[in-house]
Amino acid sequence: MNIPFNKPYLTGKETHYMYDAVQTGKISGNGKYTQLCQNFLKEKYGFGKCLLTTSCTDALEMAAILINIEPGDEIIMPSYTFVSTANAFILRGAKIIFADSRKDHPGIDEDSIEALISAKTKAIVPVHYAGVACNMDKIMDIAQRHNLFVIEDAAQAIDSFYTGKDGKKRALGSIGHLAAFSFHETKNIISGEGGMLAINDNQFIERAEIIWEKGTNRSSFFRGEVDKYGWVDMGSSFLPSEIIAAFLWAQLENLQMIQERRLKLWNIYLTELDDWAKENSVSLPVIPSFASNNAHMFYLVFKDITSRDKIIAQLKSKNILSVFHYLSLHSSKFYANKHDGRNLPETDRYSECLLRLPMFYELDIDKVIDAIKS
Amino acid sequence: MNIPFNKPYLTGKETHYMYDAVQTGKISGNGKYTQLCQNFLKEKYGFGKCLLTTSCTDALEMAAILINIEPGDEIIMPSYTFVSTANAFILRGAKIIFADSRKDHPGIDEDSIEALISAKTKAIVPVHYAGVACNMDKIMDIAQRHNLFVIEDAAQAIDSFYTGKDGKKRALGSIGHLAAFSFHETKNIISGEGGMLAINDNQFIERAEIIWEKGTNRSSFFRGEVDKYGWVDMGSSFLPSEIIAAFLWAQLENLQMIQERRLKLWNIYLTELDDWAKENSVSLPVIPSFASNNAHMFYLVFKDITSRDKIIAQLKSKNILSVFHYLSLHSSKFYANKHDGRNLPETDRYSECLLRLPMFYELDIDKVIDAIKS
Repeated sequence: MNIPFNKPYLTGKETHYMYDAVQTGKISGNGKYTQLCQNFLKEKYGFGKCLLTTSCTDALEMAAILINIEPGDEIIMPSYTFVSTANAFILRGAKIIFADSRKDHPGIDEDSIEALISAKTKAIVPVHYAGVACNMDKIMDIAQRHNLFVIEDAAQAIDSFYTGKDGKKRALGSIGHLAAFSFHETKNIISGEGGMLAINDNQFIERAEIIWEKGTNRSSFFRGEVDKYGWVDMGSSFLPSEIIAAFLWAQLENLQMIQERRLKLWNIYLTELDDWAKENSVSLPVIPSFASNNAHMFYLVFKDITSRDKIIAQLKSKNILSVFHYLSLHSSKFYANKHDGRNLPETDRYSECLLRLPMFYELDIDKVIDAIKS
Repeated sequence: MNIPFNKPYLTGKETHYMYDAVQTGKISGNGKYTQLCQNFLKEKYGFGKCLLTTSCTDALEMAAILINIEPGDEIIMPSYTFVSTANAFILRGAKIIFADSRKDHPGIDEDSIEALISAKTKAIVPVHYAGVACNMDKIMDIAQRHNLFVIEDAAQAIDSFYTGKDGKKRALGSIGHLAAFSFHETKNIISGEGGMLAINDNQFIERAEIIWEKGTNRSSFFRGEVDKYGWVDMGSSFLPSEIIAAFLWAQLENLQMIQERRLKLWNIYLTELDDWAKENSVSLPVIPSFASNNAHMFYLVFKDITSRDKIIAQLKSKNILSVFHYLSLHSSKFYANKHDGRNLPETDRYSECLLRLPMFYELDIDKVIDAIKS
C-alpha cells in the first residue's frame, strides 16, 4: 500500500533510550524509564497512581482482579469495543451485559445503562471510543447510586478530556475508579505493545502494586517497609521490560508535538470532507460538547454496508488502506449464546457502516481526500 | 556491589536488531523476529509449536486456560518454586496441592506425587529447578495412569535435557503436554521480560493461537482460512513486542557460546569448591544421571540457616552478592490457610539453607571462590 492505515511515528530518541536501558544492564521491569513514564503521566493528567503494563488488555485484567470479580458477577460495557474489554472480565468468571452505542457516536449509550443493572452488577466499563469521552457525569452518578465501580477503557484516550457539569476539565482515565490505556503501535503514543493502569481510588493502590509484582509485596520490600518479600495475593507479571518503557519515554517527551500534528490532520479531514459527506449521506465524527478531541481516529459512518465497502474498494484501488472496526461482540461466535438476546441496533450499524481513514503523523492527507472525493 | 548476583550478558547484536525492528515499522507482536525465535526454538529442541509470550508467567497462564481449569480443580506442584507457577492456576480458580522437594535436589519429589492425586486433580506441574530435569519418566507415567496433564515449568531450563529409560535424550519442555520458558534478565538467554509457551500435544495448537491473540481467530485470518476474524474464545494479549523478540533473536544466535561459557564457570565452581564443601558440611548441586546441566545456577546447601547467613554476610563484606531463593509457598501469607497442613520438610530446608552464587557470562569467578574459602 502506498498509504497504509497506520504507520508508527518515531520521534528519533526511541532507539537511543532503549540502548541506554540495555547498557545500564537493567532490562527487566520497574526501572528508571518505567518510573519516568509513570510519574510523567500521573503528574500531567492527575491520575492517582500509574503502573505500566505489557498491554491495555493486561491493565484491564488488573482492574478485574482489583475489584474482586466473582463468577456470575455482571459487568456492563458497550458491545462495540475490542475483545479485550470483555475478555479481562470473562477470565475472572464474569458475565458481560452488553449495552448499545449512542446514535450520534459509537460510545456507550449512557441512558441505556441503568435498565441493565441487576443485583449482580459490579462495574460499568465505558469505552472512550476514538478517544472521545463518554458522558462521565451520567455514568459516575449511576455508579454511585448503585454502588458500582467504573473502569474507564481509555485505550484510545491518551491526552483527551471531559468537562463535567461543574465546569471542571478532567483527563480521561482520571475519573473512574480505575482506567486502562494502550500504547500499542496503532495508538497516538506507542511502545510497540504496552499499556498502563491508572488507579484513582486510593483503596486500590497498595493491592495494585502487589498484583503487578506477581502477588508479592516486593514493592514494599524495596521501600524498606518489610524485611523480606513473599506471596501475599494472586497476581501476574504485568510489568513491561525497561526496553519498552524506554521507547515509551521518547514518545512521551514529544507528546505535545505528536498531538498537535494529529489534530491538524484531523481538522483537515473534517473541513475538506464536510461537503462531500453531506452530498453522500455520510456522517462525520461528532465531538459532544463535554468532550475534547485527541485526534486518535477519523472515521466515516455510511448509510449502509454497500456504500462503505464501495469506498474501501475505491481507496484500495488507489493503494490507500481504510479499515472497518469492531464486529458486535454480543453476536460473536463466542458470546452470541451467552448474550440475553436484546437487539443492539446502533452497535450493528457501526459494525456495518463505520470506516476508519488513515491517520498517522507522516500522512499525506491530500491524497486520501482526493481519492475519497473522486 | 563489585560482583552482583547477576549481570545480563549482551551479545552486541541486541540493539542492532531492535533498531531494525523499529525501522521496519512493525513493533507490535508476531512479526519477523517473533517468527525467527519461535522457529529456531521449535527446530532446535523439538517442541510441537512455540509461541513467544511477555513472560513465563503468561505462558503458564496460557497453559492453565488451555487445560480448561474449573474452580476447585487441583494442581500438584512443588512448594519450592516461584509464585507464578502457582498464581497461573490460582487465577483460574484452582487449588494448589503442594508437594515436597527431593532430598538430593530442590525439584519435586516424584515419589510423593501419586499420594496427592484426588478425583479433582487435573495436572502436575514439575519445575526443573536450576534447569535440572525432574524424573520425567516417573511423572509422565503417573500422569498417563491418572489421565492428568503435565505442564513443565521450564523457566530456568533452556537448553537442558532429560534422558529417559528408553535411552532417548529429549529437551526439557518437549516432554509434557505444555511447557513454559522464561527469558527474564536473570536467565541464561534473555529479553528483559519475556517467555514462551511450548505446545507438544497437538490438540492444543489451534486454541493456543486463539488465546494468544486475545481470543480471536486472527492467525487463521492471516493464513487465509477465514475471511474475517472475530471473538471465538477467551484470551489475553500474550504476545510480546517485536522489539523484545528482536532482542531475544540476538541472544538465540549466540546460544551455544553463552552456554559454553556458563558451563565452564559452573564446572570451575564445582571443582574449586569440592574440598571446601566437604570440610564445611555444605552440599553442592547434584545432577541426576537422567539430567543434563544447563549451568543456569550454582547453589550451595548449608546445614542450617545460620551457616548460610554467615556466608552471605562474609561475601557481602567483600562486595559480592549471593542470594537465597524461594520461601516455601505452602506456608506463605497467601496460602498457609489454604494448604492442607502437611509438613514439607525438604522444601523448608531449601528455603532456609540454599544459597545461590553469582553466575553470569562475564563473572570474575576466582574472586567469589576466594571469598568463600577465606
